[in-house]
Amino acid sequence: MTSERVRQALKEFVRERNWAKFHTPANLAKSSSIEAGELLECFQWNDHADPPRVSEELADVPTYCMLLAEQLSVDPDEIVLAKLVVTADKYPAERAKGRTTKYDAP
Amino acid sequence: MTSERVRQALKEFVRERNWAKFHTPANLAKSSSIEAGELLECFQWNDHADPPRVSEELADVPTYCMLLAEQLSVDPDEIVLAKLVVTADKYPAERAKGRTTKYDAP
Amino acid sequence: MTSERVRQALKEFVRERNWAKFHTPANLAKSSSIEAGELLECFQWNDHADPPRVSEELADVPTYCMLLAEQLSVDPDEIVLAKLVVTADKYPAERAKGRTTKYDAP
Amino acid sequence: MTSERVRQALKEFVRERNWAKFHTPANLAKSSSIEAGELLECFQWNDHADPPRVSEELADVPTYCMLLAEQLSVDPDEIVLAKLVVTADKYPAERAKGRTTKYDAP
Repeated sequence: MTSERVRQALKEFVRERNWAKFHTPANLAKSSSIEAGELLECFQWNDHADPPRVSEELADVPTYCMLLAEQLSVDPDEIVLAKLVVTADKYPAERAKGRTTKYDAP
Repeated sequence: MTSERVRQALKEFVRERNWAKFHTPANLAKSSSIEAGELLECFQWNDHADPPRVSEELADVPTYCMLLAEQLSVDPDEIVLAKLVVTADKYPAERAKGRTTKYDAP
Repeated sequence: MTSERVRQALKEFVRERNWAKFHTPANLAKSSSIEAGELLECFQWNDHADPPRVSEELADVPTYCMLLAEQLSVDPDEIVLAKLVVTADKYPAERAKGRTTKYDAP
Repeated sequence: MTSERVRQALKEFVRERNWAKFHTPANLAKSSSIEAGELLECFQWNDHADPPRVSEELADVPTYCMLLAEQLSVDPDEIVLAKLVVTADKYPAERAKGRTTKYDAP
């Protein structure tokens, strides 16, 4: 399945409700943060959480990210891939294996 | 383009660096929240931000969301579509038009 | 020592820099979230973090909370105490002992 | 009124419910982030929010911050004041007046 299907479903959902006016980039950035907090709440007091509950909370985060990507006229998958290239450069595989620290940090 | 391409690129990126051990659902939920905060920082003092900067910060959020979806063995696009159905029910188009409040709230 | 000392130090700090205009409640709420994300980053990949680093990141969160309390003309300590009374009612000691779940949840 | 009163009230509240075991620094950092997201939700779709609602959501953020300060054996007011000194150095009053950008950034 393709992100294009999701993109169109979101567009229609927003259009039907006349909600585009609320979807300023700033509001969508706030919304991503708010929903990421609700996702985090699944793990507030321990490291294990019911997978169906986590999936349900998780869904809202990329939803708002996709709406923001739409406002910026960027493709969500493309920006993820582009960032992966940047991150690969910051953390070269041969030196980053198994470690989370940056090797070229000041 | 398809999420499958991104999914495979992420899988390879993680495998090359032996980072899977860090990708517990709890750590990925924390990471989504942390990156959503960095995205929000683009709009900390005003509502307008340089689009390329926003796109760059935005990329990290769905990246971690996709990694979490992988851990939960769910398809990110499918859970977004499934949640859209639930949200459509909470906010029926004919009553939600142009408003953000829930009509059936207690 | 008293919060009044901190309150005055913050007021002077802001006044000297003419930063009050940036301190709308919305911007201060965003700032609290952003800084909470930076605090969380100390624990992104594991549960243990260097205490001095945590203290340094922690400081920014109540700083913005106090600035927001100032904008709302409320006393930060008083609202914390008031909320404690509400929470004590939601989680009566005799029933909440050692558990995090709400007893009167629907 | 003094933070010592709040500190003791929080200590008693936690003791009565035997909740100290949940208050690891990592869990308290997550909690601060989660609550900061709920505070931010007051401003999700616009810049103006009902002050009593904001105060109520605000209270939870410094509450968790104080609990974390307790775990780190630091005084919340002292770390705020210490950070203010560091920030004053990053943003000297004579150069930072009315602007939010760092003058010594690379």
